[in-house]
Order: sequence, then C-alpha cells, then structure tokens
Amino acid sequence: MSNKIKVGVLGATGAVGQRFVHMLQGHPWFEITALCASDRSTSKRYADACKWNLRGDMPEALRDVVLQDCQPGIDCEIVFGGLPTEVAGPIEEAFAVAGYVVCSNSSNHRYDPDVPLMIPEVNPEHLQLIETQKRKRGWPGFIICNPNCTTTHLVSALHPLHVRFGLKKVFVVTMQAVSGAGYPGVSSMDILDNVVPYIGGEEAKVEQKEPHKLLGVLDGDGVRYADFVVSAHCNRVPVRNAHLEAISVEFATQPTEEEVLNAWRYYDPLPQQLKLPSAPQPAILYDERPDRPQPRLDRLKGTVPGMATVIGRLRPDPLFHWKFLSLGHNTIRGAAGGSILNAELLVAQGYLGERASALAAVREFA
Amino acid sequence: MSNKIKVGVLGATGAVGQRFVHMLQGHPWFEITALCASDRSTSKRYADACKWNLRGDMPEALRDVVLQDCQPGIDCEIVFGGLPTEVAGPIEEAFAVAGYVVCSNSSNHRYDPDVPLMIPEVNPEHLQLIETQKRKRGWPGFIICNPNCTTTHLVSALHPLHVRFGLKKVFVVTMQAVSGAGYPGVSSMDILDNVVPYIGGEEAKVEQKEPHKLLGVLDGDGVRYADFVVSAHCNRVPVRNAHLEAISVEFATQPTEEEVLNAWRYYDPLPQQLKLPSAPQPAILYDERPDRPQPRLDRLKGTVPGMATVIGRLRPDPLFHWKFLSLGHNTIRGAAGGSILNAELLVAQGYLGERASALAAVREFA
Amino acid sequence: MSNKIKVGVLGATGAVGQRFVHMLQGHPWFEITALCASDRSTSKRYADACKWNLRGDMPEALRDVVLQDCQPGIDCEIVFGGLPTEVAGPIEEAFAVAGYVVCSNSSNHRYDPDVPLMIPEVNPEHLQLIETQKRKRGWPGFIICNPNCTTTHLVSALHPLHVRFGLKKVFVVTMQAVSGAGYPGVSSMDILDNVVPYIGGEEAKVEQKEPHKLLGVLDGDGVRYADFVVSAHCNRVPVRNAHLEAISVEFATQPTEEEVLNAWRYYDPLPQQLKLPSAPQPAILYDERPDRPQPRLDRLKGTVPGMATVIGRLRPDPLFHWKFLSLGHNTIRGAAGGSILNAELLVAQGYLGERASALAAVREFA
Amino acid sequence: MSNKIKVGVLGATGAVGQRFVHMLQGHPWFEITALCASDRSTSKRYADACKWNLRGDMPEALRDVVLQDCQPGIDCEIVFGGLPTEVAGPIEEAFAVAGYVVCSNSSNHRYDPDVPLMIPEVNPEHLQLIETQKRKRGWPGFIICNPNCTTTHLVSALHPLHVRFGLKKVFVVTMQAVSGAGYPGVSSMDILDNVVPYIGGEEAKVEQKEPHKLLGVLDGDGVRYADFVVSAHCNRVPVRNAHLEAISVEFATQPTEEEVLNAWRYYDPLPQQLKLPSAPQPAILYDERPDRPQPRLDRLKGTVPGMATVIGRLRPDPLFHWKFLSLGHNTIRGAAGGSILNAELLVAQGYLGERASALAAVREFA
Repeated sequence: MSNKIKVGVLGATGAVGQRFVHMLQGHPWFEITALCASDRSTSKRYADACKWNLRGDMPEALRDVVLQDCQPGIDCEIVFGGLPTEVAGPIEEAFAVAGYVVCSNSSNHRYDPDVPLMIPEVNPEHLQLIETQKRKRGWPGFIICNPNCTTTHLVSALHPLHVRFGLKKVFVVTMQAVSGAGYPGVSSMDILDNVVPYIGGEEAKVEQKEPHKLLGVLDGDGVRYADFVVSAHCNRVPVRNAHLEAISVEFATQPTEEEVLNAWRYYDPLPQQLKLPSAPQPAILYDERPDRPQPRLDRLKGTVPGMATVIGRLRPDPLFHWKFLSLGHNTIRGAAGGSILNAELLVAQGYLGERASALAAVREFA
Repeated sequence: MSNKIKVGVLGATGAVGQRFVHMLQGHPWFEITALCASDRSTSKRYADACKWNLRGDMPEALRDVVLQDCQPGIDCEIVFGGLPTEVAGPIEEAFAVAGYVVCSNSSNHRYDPDVPLMIPEVNPEHLQLIETQKRKRGWPGFIICNPNCTTTHLVSALHPLHVRFGLKKVFVVTMQAVSGAGYPGVSSMDILDNVVPYIGGEEAKVEQKEPHKLLGVLDGDGVRYADFVVSAHCNRVPVRNAHLEAISVEFATQPTEEEVLNAWRYYDPLPQQLKLPSAPQPAILYDERPDRPQPRLDRLKGTVPGMATVIGRLRPDPLFHWKFLSLGHNTIRGAAGGSILNAELLVAQGYLGERASALAAVREFA
Repeated sequence: MSNKIKVGVLGATGAVGQRFVHMLQGHPWFEITALCASDRSTSKRYADACKWNLRGDMPEALRDVVLQDCQPGIDCEIVFGGLPTEVAGPIEEAFAVAGYVVCSNSSNHRYDPDVPLMIPEVNPEHLQLIETQKRKRGWPGFIICNPNCTTTHLVSALHPLHVRFGLKKVFVVTMQAVSGAGYPGVSSMDILDNVVPYIGGEEAKVEQKEPHKLLGVLDGDGVRYADFVVSAHCNRVPVRNAHLEAISVEFATQPTEEEVLNAWRYYDPLPQQLKLPSAPQPAILYDERPDRPQPRLDRLKGTVPGMATVIGRLRPDPLFHWKFLSLGHNTIRGAAGGSILNAELLVAQGYLGERASALAAVREFA
Repeated sequence: MSNKIKVGVLGATGAVGQRFVHMLQGHPWFEITALCASDRSTSKRYADACKWNLRGDMPEALRDVVLQDCQPGIDCEIVFGGLPTEVAGPIEEAFAVAGYVVCSNSSNHRYDPDVPLMIPEVNPEHLQLIETQKRKRGWPGFIICNPNCTTTHLVSALHPLHVRFGLKKVFVVTMQAVSGAGYPGVSSMDILDNVVPYIGGEEAKVEQKEPHKLLGVLDGDGVRYADFVVSAHCNRVPVRNAHLEAISVEFATQPTEEEVLNAWRYYDPLPQQLKLPSAPQPAILYDERPDRPQPRLDRLKGTVPGMATVIGRLRPDPLFHWKFLSLGHNTIRGAAGGSILNAELLVAQGYLGERASALAAVREFA
C-alpha cells in the first residue's frame, strides 16, 4: 500500500487537467486518488468522459476511475485546480474551507493579499502568507496560486537579474502557443497562416499585477509589490506549445553582459537546492546560438521536460539596457507543472503535515 | 501599338520578380518589354525557367518571352530590380551607367548618401537627390531604392505621427512572414509549429539606418538623418504573407489618443493626391476591432490590394506614450509594389522624360 | 429602385452565411433584403452579431441591417439556407410551406426522393422534381439542395467521364480544409502539425448517396440512382480552404488518355451555355503541371473565383483505369456558391416566376 | 574501455545523419567512432559543421568530433548510410569493397537482386542474400538496405495479413511529412496552408518494386517478387514528422474483421522474439478510437519511440475487402531507425563476426 500523499485533480478532463494527470503519473510523492469534473461528466469513467489529446495514451490505471463532482468530500489532501476561471473561484474556496490544500491554476485568487502567488524559485518565502490567510479567513485549509503562463517565464527570466540589478522597466512582446487557450480554445479558422494580436485580459495581468506581486517583498500580512513598470503586447501564433517572449529591460544599476549571463548561469534557487522532484537542474538554460530559443526545438529542454526557462540572444538594447528572449512551456511549467512544483515546495517546507492535522480535525467534526 | 513606358524586370524568375510581373500586368502606365534572369535561365522561355508560385497563373502573354541576361542593352526605360543582394549591386550600377532608371529593391545602395531611399507617401522630396547622384557619379541614368519590408510598414505608420509630434523612441517587435526570405527561403522543417526569433541583419537595418534616412530631411547633397532611437526584435512566424509589428512610441510632444487617430485619419500624402495608380486610397487604414489587424484577414485590405498599411489596437503604453500594431504586405508594398509606386512617382514628377532624353543620348553613342 | 430578385440568408452570421453575404454583394440578379439568425442574435445589427472572418470587411450596406428570426414572413422570394443541419430541416420546410423558394445547403432534405439535389452542370433536368415535390406535398414553395462539398468536386470531375464511358468503380481519398467544419469548427489544438483521418458521416455521404443521386436519371416521380460503387477515405488537413481529392476510376468502357482529357476539355454544360452569372467559364480546368492542383495556389482559379473544379495528374492506375486529382473550393462552390448557382438556374429555367405567383397566392390568404 | 561494436555515420550532418547520431546515443551494442560528411564539412568539428535541428541538443560527446571524408579507412565495422541518393551509390560500394558492413538508407542498391532489402519483422530470411552478394561481387563486406519510408509503414501493416490471407490488390494514398524530403527540403512557401500532391519518384517505388521484393520469397540467388498489384497516390502535407496512409486491400481469401485484427494482435515476428534493442514491443499497435491514428499524437507511440506502426479505423471497403489507416514515423523507423534495426538483426544472426574476420583480412593486405 502506497504511503504517497493523496491528491485530486479538479477539471480533470480539460487541457490543464490532462496535463496534471500526465505529470502526476509516477510522481514520487503524490498519487492521484480523485478525478473531478463538471456535472455533465460525473459518474462517467475517465476514459469515456475525457477526449485525451496529449501525446501518448491516457494512463491505463486511471481509465476506469469514475469522475466525481468538484466538491469537498473527495479522498485526498491536496487538490490541483485545473478549472476554468469562470467557475474555479467558489469551488476552490469550498475546498479550502473544508480543510484541503488547494494548488490553484486559475486567476481568481491570485491577487488576494493573503494568497501566495508562487514560483518556487522566485518567492518561496511568500508561503508565509498561508498563516495570514488561515488566520484571517478561519479556514483549516488554504489556497496557493501559480501565475499565468506568460508571467511565469517572464518573471523566471527576470528574477535573478532583479535581485542583483533592480528592475526599472520591462518591455515584453509575447508570441503565445494555442494551447494556452485550452481545448478547443483557438479555432483553426483563426490561426492557420495567421497571428492573432490579442488575448483577452492577458496584457493587464502582465503589466499590472503578477510580476509585481511575485517579485514583491513580504510586509506584515501582505506583499509590498515590486516597483517597476511593464509594457506588454500579447499575441497568439500558430504554435502548439510554448510561449516565446521578446524582452527588453532597464535596471537601477546597468550590468555588463557578463554580469547578466552570470546571474543566470549561477542561479541556484531553493527548489533546485532542495532537489524537488519537478525542479529542473538548472532552472534556467542559456542557449548561445544566434537563432534560439525556438518553441518547437527548446520547449522540452532540460532535466525535467517543460519545467525550465530557456533564454537566448542577450544583446544591448538601444532604448533600454539589454534585450533577450525567454521561452517556456505554457501548459507544463506555465500551468500544471507550476502547481505541482508549488505543492512539492509545500511538502518540503512542512506545510502539509500541518494541513494533515487540520484535515483530521475538520473530519472529526464533520 | 502601346505608348506605355517600357520596363524590364531583373531577377524575373525569383519571388520578388514574380511579384513585379504579377503587379505590372495591365498597369496603366508601364508595360513589360524585357525579363532578365541569372545565367542558367537565360535563353529559356519564361514559362520553362520560372516555377510560378503565386496564386493564379503566370500571365499568358509572358509565357513565351525569352529570358535575357541581367545587363544593359535590353529594350526598356525603367528596370525593376528583384535580384538578391549578393549580386544586385554592380548589376544595378551598370544599368544606371547605361542610362536606365533603376528602381531597386535590394539593400546594396539604400544607404548611399546620394541615392534616394523612398516611400512615396513619406519623403517624395528626396527624389531631388537624383540630381546630386547623376552629377556626382556622372551617370546618365540613376538608382532609387525602396526600404526593407519591415521598415516600410513601420515608417508608413509612424510618418504622420512624426511630422506632428516628433518621434523620440520607437520600440518594435516584428512577426514576419516566410515570403520575406524569398523562395525557397525558410525551410518548412524550421517553421512548422515554430517561431524563429532571428533574421540575419534585419534588426540592424531597422534600428540604425532605414527609418532615420526615410524620415530625414534633405540637406545639401544628402539627407540629415532623423534623430530618434529604435529598438527592434525581429521574428519569423509561420505565416505566408504580411509582417505584423507590435510598436510602442514616445514623442517630443505627447499627443492625445484623438490626435494620434486623427493623424492617421486625415493623412493625405502626395501619391494619394496625385492619384498614382498603385497608391491605395487611403494609404493608412485604422481598424477599430480589438483583435486586428491580422495577417491573413487584412493583408490585402484597401483599394490597391497589398499596398496599404493597416493599423489597430492603439492604447496607452506604460513605458512610452502609445502602443499599437502595424500590418502590411511584405512582398507587395514591402517589395515589388513599393518599387512600382516609386516609379510612378518618378513619372508623375517628370523624372522620366529627362531619363528618356538621356537614354536617347547614350544610345546614339553606343 | 432595384428590380432585382429579393433574397434572404438563413444563418447569416455563420461561416456559410457569411459566404452567401459575400458572394451576393453586387450580384446582377439578386439582392439581399433579409438576414436571419438564431434567437440570440435577432434584433441585433448584423455588424454587432456577426464576427466576420472572411478576408475584406463585411459589406458596408449590410452592417446596420437588423437580424430577423429564421421564420417565414421576411421580405424576399428566395431564401438561401446556411443553417447547421441540426436545425435546418423544419425551418426550411416552413419556408417552403409559406411559398418561398428554398436553396438549401444542409443535408436534411438531400435524399428526399422529390427534392432535387443539384449541381447545375451535372443534372439540370432534375429540377423537374420540383413539380412532383409541390404536387405531393401541396406546398406553394419548394426546396432544392446542393450536395456536400466533398461530393461536389468529386462528381463535377466525374460527370463528363460518366456520360461518355460509364462509371463502374470510384476510389477517392480526400484531404479536406478546416473551413468545411464551420466556425469555430476544428480546434487548432487538433490540427496544427497534424492530420485528422476522420470526419463524422462524410464517408457514408460520398459512398452511398450523393454521387449516385446526382448522376442518376429521372424516372417518374424520382431519380433512379446511378449504378457504380464508391469507396471513400476522408481526412482533415491543416489547410484553410479547398478540398483536394485523390481519385481512381474504372469505367464500363476503358477510355484512352486523350479521350479522358477531351471529355474535360470540351465539357460545356448548361450553366456555361446559359452564361449564368456564377458559372465559371469553363467549368473544369485541367492543369498539366506535375504537382498540381494545390489548395493554396488553385482554389480561386478560373473566371468566377472558387466556382471551378481544377483537375490534374491524369495517369494510368494499376488497379483501375485512370487516376487523377480534383480540387475545389469547399465554402464557395462546395457550399454558398453552389446554392447561388442553383438559384440562378431556377431563374433561367423559369421556376421563379411560377413561385412569385404562388407566393402572391399564399399571401392573399395569409 | 568499451567493447561495443564501432559504427560510423555517412552524411552525419544531414537530416537522416542527425537521426542516426541521435538514436545511436547510449545504444547498448553500438558506439559511434566516426562521423563522415561531404568535402566542404570535413576537418570541421561536428558542432561547427552541423546545424542540429532535432529537439534536444547535439550529443555533448560528439560536438568535438572532427568530420572525416566519406571513404574507407575510418575506424569502424558498420557504416550507416545517410547520404543523398545522388552520391550514395559508389560511396557505399567502396565501403563494401573495403570490407565494411554497409546499412544503407538510400535507394541506389535497393533493387539489386543480391542486396537484401530489409524490414527485420517482415523478411529476416532475406539476409541469406548476403552470401550471394559477397560471392558474386567478391566483396569482403556487403550492403543491406532498408526501404523507403512510405513503403516501410505500408508493408509493416500488410505483412501479417499477407502471410495469412494473401494480398491481391493494395490501394494506398499517402499524406507524408515534410521531414521526408530532408533539410532544407520542402520550402515553407510551398507547404503552409497547402498540400503538394506530388513527390518525385515516390509512387513508382511503392507501386512497382519495394513491397513486392520485401514480401517476396528467396529463390536461389535472388528474390521472387510477391504477386500483387499496388496503386499509390503520394501527397505532402504540412506535418513535421510521420506519414499517414489510407489503405484499401483485397486478399486471395477474404478474412473476417476479427481475423484481420487478430493477425495484427498476435503478430510476433523475429526481432520482437529476439528482443533486439530497437524492436518495439509489440511491432504493431491497433488504436480503436474512431479518429486515430494521427501524426502528432501517435508518431512516437510504443516502447521504442518512432519504431512501431500504428493502425486504426479498420472497416469494410465497398470496392475491396477492408480499409484502414497506417501511421509511422518516417525519419525514425522509416529511415535511420530502420537501418539500425537491420544492423541489430545482422549482429543477432551472426553476420558481424564474419565481417570482422573479413575486415581483419582486408586490413592485413592494405
């Protein structure tokens, strides 16, 4: 009998949900004990309700699992949230109220002052907000979030530079994969032989909120947002997976080329030191070839496929200090994989035991 | 018998050459009287030497035309240059030396101080450099150039703003079509399901030279380059035709949104006033829809397909004043069509009669 | 004041509906006087309810037209049906009951014995079924149908051969464009870098019903289906528009290559003789190049863009007599354009005057 | 010190050569000791001469290997041929003359009566031709070939059916990936939003030679070709990797659906019994879903990615007995992987020791 931590997946039939299922197969710490979906799928077998569209087949062991409703009562400690934003908010709260640890992938709670918005390499200390959250809300469980896929690979590239040189201005133009819109998502009629230069709400997320919270500092019961300005143009391109971002930056202190490269080269953040199972070693890869990174060639690069950020083309910028490219997988590190790494950090930092007790307590009175 | 002006096409079998041939069909002022190609094609029928890859068929009337060498002696007044940069330079000079009017599409002479680099809407007065060129070089003919396809639709969008508000800083990230690399150009192995974030030499052209010369002012025998800074990231995307550009700008004087829109709305430059046959009416189209312009949907928009610049998504930029998108056809306005419009401006401004005499003179002594 | 025939479009906001609107602009005989859509769009302006996704803009004159319900009462004589099969059946019947001429694009009535399934070049005499239909059903109006897009270009290519040599066996493998599935239709997640070798219901339509009815002969009150066997494999490929079909055929009498080519070359069916406005001249184009036809290059070939069938690569088949390729535009000739040509044939053959009287009669009693 | 068998790769910088290098990394039996390329690359480091375009990086250990000429003298026992057909013929012969074992991927020698054309699952007994070849030609080494990528996955699917039911007629229409044309191969200008229904020479290979030799029986010093008729239409589609084939077949004895499925299900040919390292277990995968196999989702399916043949959609054919789809990776099993599996079979069957002696003998006199 397994002594792995039991986890459930909310929205298991969707694009992000399938990634969760795929990545949790054979996970050394976690085991899937519940798959949840919307009403019209519950009580069906996972194999019947889910049109699997990842490479390879649906994990054999899960084909016969019967889908449950997205509500507390399922047998697990952690729930991974792969629900669409339209419905995720109250459902995730209900799970936290019921004592579950919720690793959310939706935007609903990302900007709540007492909810940690996490990239484990970037701001592991923000987990301390969990205490605040539980205290203020009186919940036995809690919610933590990972950022939007675009923010993830932007901030992952910037973090080692920010801590050394201080970000002032960030200009970013994205070329984003269709999988970022979920399934069915972007119509083939719209994207074949085309670029769609608009993704609803995306620019605001990147310009106004997520990078600043992620790179902010803990301050009492909240996060003091980092003070730099971002301008973003977001575009959809006919690429299956991985977002490519053209980035220009200005710092408080202008670094040399070597200093920038070294900041990435010697970057060794906490998840890598802790050797978390889903933490790529290293977290950042710099490719020296003049025409890299490229989505198709580099999206799975590194020790944990889809979890690293790949950078290239560092060169002086006539208007800012430096410009470069950042590339990362949007549905792995930018979604399901980000949540799983968050959960691994929770375990490594002892937040799970705590929750386990809380869950026990809740259950006694339930 | 036609009294149209006789024109020849250099590099008639290539991607740009085919566009010239296609666009010159039924032209009200010009008629093709010579098709030239590299050695291995000369003496062949055009239909045999040229793998036509534009929609529709090769013009029937040209199928049996025998290809000639790319050297003076061909029967025409204007030569349109569709040769690759590697060979175009000396060939185009030879034609000018022999008294022809050369409308070049290559980069070889674009930066020569006495060669007009032209977008007829933007800097028609630069044609005055022709006198300087002929005087200094002692040529009976002359060369004029159109800019690179990326520069064309960047500067076309910026020109009405520059004259009113004064450009200070321009940030541009391009998503460029594969046809910009000619035929066979970009391998399908490189671009399917991918973006290639590198186009050799392209960023330098946009950052350092072409926009500044185009928006510069005549000063004695040359052009005093306009004084603003450009930062460019250039990318190749899996799109057949049209370059999409994400642009952010800062001006000497910050305009209101309405002022920017009006600058485009009421833009009525010389080619449109002269009603040149290839001048779209209007030159700039602004699309108010939130997700436009898009390459596939908008690249042929306007009264002369492929000749207009389509702009959209004007919105405030947190780091600059305004940001927006510019889209234009790269092999029509950005290449062959740009050269043809240049030639039309030459005719309208009386530069052709002059050349006709010169040509006559040269021929007497040849 | 226009004396054109008034027409309405059912499902005007959808993919096929937009094609109808696009193709009816400037039509010499027809003018749009009503646009109808589903409940959630009615009472909205066409410009507000319809996400136009064809190249070029929505016709200016129709932007402010208010969408009406899909039910009789609209002011027109002909209704063009662009509704999805799920809802089209009863709606189209209601219009026929109310005295309208219905040119349907759906499959609902295609196989009714008394409903003409029409390709005007192929079986114009089948219009005689209209009398039967009206008599049997007691309707003042009537319904005629055009076949599925795949059938259309298969049968268009085969018809001139069938009448001369007698079809026995037809083997066809299709490579179909995404637009055949409507909008949003095929998810980009499914088709980028992929082929989907399945289109629900398509193979049955081609194998069992449509070609046999189209090539069948009138027999009393119905059509005696043509007697030949079809095998079809249907595939979806990442192409925007046009279906390409690889076809092998065996005949009752084996023709020579020249006889096959001549059958296509000298094909001059009724719509071309009548010079119907949407009839391409000629109906069939044969391309001799070894690698043609190709969807992107040839889908708009001919005098009426998108209405011709383009054939190529005729060569002996080791298992049958001959093999070749057929290509045609699926949303033009294969859908909206097919219906419009049907309507033109109705007018030319005098079916409209008749209906006009009927409509008048109905209205008197309404 | 390794006691693996030394192997060399001819044409190591090309598309097939890179696949060889990629697949031979960490191979349990083989180790790369020589990389050869054309004149213009020799003496360069592999990392400098080769534009690596597979996912992941060039193997670190080979980056500094200096490229050698494609001629005998290199230190290895087996040479894998990844050269273009234009040059491969005489070079491969020279290696066989010099005592090397040549596993060729080119078409030059495929149809020589004394050269085994091999799919190890299909015709392992054809290796006996090696004796004939060596005797007739007096060579100490020898050449064996793998078939064209299209033939490979056609014959792999047909073999278990042929041995049971006897093939009579095979109809196949292919939808082939761009990687089949090598690098740069197919221009993006030709294939974006398009299908090219022509691949030079491909149909003849499939119709007239390769399947018949592969499924033929040894007869004295040659192979008596199998007696069935093939008709093929070959098309290029915008897919990166994997060929999809729509197949219809007629047998000497008509099998039931269950008999066909069982023929695939219980297929257990020699390489799988021998557990050759590159032999997928099982060799054939049948996917029951109605819309499979699909190139992007299924090309790497099975225990050895890219080596299995994936079949689906078995259904009755109105003109033949059965129709179905076959899918396989064209540059893995259809090229480099096919050659490697051939070499593994040679080793397992004892053909290598023999060659080792021969090589020793040759070297004594050299």
